[in-house]
Amino acid sequence: MGHNTPRGTSPLVLTIDTMNPNVKNVEYAVRGPIVQRAVQIEKELREGVKKPFTEVIKANIGDAHAMGQQPITFFRQVLALCSYPELLKDNMFPEDAKSRARRILQACGGSSLGAYSASQGIDCVRQDVARYIERRDGGVPCDPDNVYLTSGASDGIVTMLKLLVCGEGASKTGVMISIPQYPLYSAALAELGAVQVNYYLNEEKCWSMDLSELERSLAEARKHCNPKVLCIINPGNPTGQVQSRQCIEDVIRFAAKEHLFLMADEVYQDNVYAEGCQFHSFKKVLFELGPQYSNTVELVSFHSTSKCYMGECGFRGGYMEVINMDPEVKAQLIKLVSVRLCPAVPGQALMDLVVNSPQPGEPSYTTFMKERTTTLSLLAEKAKLTEEILNTVPGITCNPVQGAMYSFPNISLPQKAIKEAKALGQAPDMFYCMKMLEETGICLVPGSGFGQKDGTYHFRMTILPPTDKLKLLLAKVKEFHQKFTRQYS
Amino acid sequence: MGHNTPRGTSPLVLTIDTMNPNVKNVEYAVRGPIVQRAVQIEKELREGVKKPFTEVIKANIGDAHAMGQQPITFFRQVLALCSYPELLKDNMFPEDAKSRARRILQACGGSSLGAYSASQGIDCVRQDVARYIERRDGGVPCDPDNVYLTSGASDGIVTMLKLLVCGEGASKTGVMISIPQYPLYSAALAELGAVQVNYYLNEEKCWSMDLSELERSLAEARKHCNPKVLCIINPGNPTGQVQSRQCIEDVIRFAAKEHLFLMADEVYQDNVYAEGCQFHSFKKVLFELGPQYSNTVELVSFHSTSKCYMGECGFRGGYMEVINMDPEVKAQLIKLVSVRLCPAVPGQALMDLVVNSPQPGEPSYTTFMKERTTTLSLLAEKAKLTEEILNTVPGITCNPVQGAMYSFPNISLPQKAIKEAKALGQAPDMFYCMKMLEETGICLVPGSGFGQKDGTYHFRMTILPPTDKLKLLLAKVKEFHQKFTRQYS
Ligand SMILES: Cc1ncc(COP(=O)(O)O)c(C=O)c1O
Ligand SMILES: Cc1ncc(COP(=O)(O)O)c(C=O)c1O
Repeated sequence: MGHNTPRGTSPLVLTIDTMNPNVKNVEYAVRGPIVQRAVQIEKELREGVKKPFTEVIKANIGDAHAMGQQPITFFRQVLALCSYPELLKDNMFPEDAKSRARRILQACGGSSLGAYSASQGIDCVRQDVARYIERRDGGVPCDPDNVYLTSGASDGIVTMLKLLVCGEGASKTGVMISIPQYPLYSAALAELGAVQVNYYLNEEKCWSMDLSELERSLAEARKHCNPKVLCIINPGNPTGQVQSRQCIEDVIRFAAKEHLFLMADEVYQDNVYAEGCQFHSFKKVLFELGPQYSNTVELVSFHSTSKCYMGECGFRGGYMEVINMDPEVKAQLIKLVSVRLCPAVPGQALMDLVVNSPQPGEPSYTTFMKERTTTLSLLAEKAKLTEEILNTVPGITCNPVQGAMYSFPNISLPQKAIKEAKALGQAPDMFYCMKMLEETGICLVPGSGFGQKDGTYHFRMTILPPTDKLKLLLAKVKEFHQKFTRQYS
Repeated sequence: MGHNTPRGTSPLVLTIDTMNPNVKNVEYAVRGPIVQRAVQIEKELREGVKKPFTEVIKANIGDAHAMGQQPITFFRQVLALCSYPELLKDNMFPEDAKSRARRILQACGGSSLGAYSASQGIDCVRQDVARYIERRDGGVPCDPDNVYLTSGASDGIVTMLKLLVCGEGASKTGVMISIPQYPLYSAALAELGAVQVNYYLNEEKCWSMDLSELERSLAEARKHCNPKVLCIINPGNPTGQVQSRQCIEDVIRFAAKEHLFLMADEVYQDNVYAEGCQFHSFKKVLFELGPQYSNTVELVSFHSTSKCYMGECGFRGGYMEVINMDPEVKAQLIKLVSVRLCPAVPGQALMDLVVNSPQPGEPSYTTFMKERTTTLSLLAEKAKLTEEILNTVPGITCNPVQGAMYSFPNISLPQKAIKEAKALGQAPDMFYCMKMLEETGICLVPGSGFGQKDGTYHFRMTILPPTDKLKLLLAKVKEFHQKFTRQYS
């Protein structure tokens, strides 16, 4: 008989007391109470409720199209052709779009996006991914057999953690994640019942990784669990930093020495804006360190169609490349992904287009490059703008947004506000963001949703709104912060 | 330090000994060794290796488009319009396709399929699903708040099991599943570390559910775990039966009396072929039993874009409706699905089209109905054909394929074959199917992959190949079975 459910005491089988306790422990701020309230306020506005603002501006999630970014024409043409191949007979689409569509369809069962694919993903897409990785990494070889297509990077991350987590008590798997982190990691670890091992990014040094902090965190963790995995997000979410080559090298040496499996979340690999910053893939650096490292260190890297210049979140496309995985485990991974049959095929097709985009000489090349460059330059401009304006606000300090799509400024909150928040049982920056939402319609995510050093407060704001709206938003944030500070001083 | 991984003994962090043992316990026959060998054989054929056949015929998976079934024109037109909205300006598409596309796009962030949707699914799609369910169930009300869009039914099933499973030892959650079953269930239970509780379908009575067998199974399970969930697949996979209204009523009364959460997998709800058979949704029957049941029995029902007349597996569309769920648990469910952000939006769009298909008077209605009817009549014809031909083979007994997409005939295997299989460490029907694949190129799944009564043997064969190919396939199966029987007698 049930441990929490002596039969007959509740009319329901599934209650908060009888459900999976790991699920209960999950927290997920990006779509948490602030966002739910924002949706409610939007509804109230539609119903004519009077507010001190006329629209909710959502700067809480890295959802580029929702913020007005336009899709890449070429990608959507090919997707339309694949969806309705009758269009191949028409003359309205460029030849390169048609040939990409034909190639994808040929690789699908019955030449249809509607057939299940191989669970690891369509063969030719994995081959294209492998060639893309080789080009990106200056020729470091990539075996398509190491590539797995996924339903967004989220799916890949959860799948890899699922493979890695085991044990109970002091031998339970520990997974090192950066703080602040993207909350998918903490959520997945809670769900799997793994131990979350925090290492703190160095806010003073533009959110870089400190070797000494990694060492501290690991030593601490070894006292109570079995730390096996080290996760890195680069470029960073929510922190917007781009790690230096040196830092990546240090991290790899550390992982090798300490026998850690590396998980590199590189979904923002094209989102690098700051002068002097460059994206270095963990794979490339690993191979540059020589065979002693490249033959032994286990590394998985994640990519996605959701970010970069494409911002195609809704398609849930993504891939992961796994290096140095035990062949027996590989068979287990393939079995595991088979249970859900396959990632959505339109997302696989889109991933293919990202890694096999129009080339010089092809009819769509010029437009493609123009669209890509425009989007990325706009993002770079907005990254700069955000940093600059936020730093004009007394009490707000914002690191450069070197990459990704977010600023994560430090905010000073008056003691009185902190007290009031605590009295309400709220994190102080949650209290602040909730007030900002109610007064200005701006929806941000409090730093507490990502983790932060005790006693510091932040919010995460995307740089995605169109420039005009972003300026307005930043002006409102400034005004609100000043008012809030006065009110609670 | 690691319980299985004393540091230093293996050069790798993740090995078969250190990985998640629950994942290791997962079995998944539909894409298991037979299918892997089939893929290999296809490769060998392409490379010119001589075989006693020229092509592999895959009758192992319910993948309609891969078997040549054509997609519904209207669905694909709308998907193309949604992918590349420039096409809305064109005159090549019918007005109803355009208006559906506009409606879907309006409900998407930034009017783009590329934006993340609400985690529960796009609002207007959930509303359309609710109206569809109400029509299907003769007016029984459906609240869109109870509807969750999913990445195929697989995703919904795993999510619900994840919520339901907890406890350790004798209080571990037990989940009752039919044997034979669709192996997603056993795989998900293994992954979650839940207890699989088998109840056997009655092969003699056309794979119906016996109340006495449910009672036996439950009583048995209560000795060692906490059975909380009862799963039913109707129409059945792999067994092709359609449960009677009386049977469904009995099952609901049983669940109510025994305090079980009902999971009804109804992905084949339009796939009903046999004279006198009809699909009855669990929801409808539940409400017909009156408020004593409809207000208390917890029920989730799953549907998908992958089956029925559409067969759109690759899009990974699906929904679930959850009745009588504790509001606190509902909040937990919404949080849980938020972690993965949202189901693929093209799949959501497709799900919308399925539940909001062309209506009389709309320009696409006639073509839509013709395509739908043709596909379903062909399936009905092939269901009959399969049953008839298989039953002409001495040693093969096949129940009527009343619905779904599969036959699951009983095969008599000679003692000598059983011995030889056991010597090889193989299930006898795996041995049989592997031999059939090597000799004829036909790819079936052995009954042991789905579960079956001890000492009985089966295979699952889809009815999806085009009629001509199906006839050829059945003739080959017949010939093989006779040869096999002679060889081992
Ligand atoms: C660092 C990081 N990883 C992974 C993801 C998941 O993205 P998706 O599942 O859409 O690919 C996100 C989304 O914001 C992210 O910021
Ligand atoms: C009974 C049953 N349930 C669920 C599924 C999963 O289908 P999907 O995830 O493609 O919707 C299948 C697929 O064959 C099935 O047969």
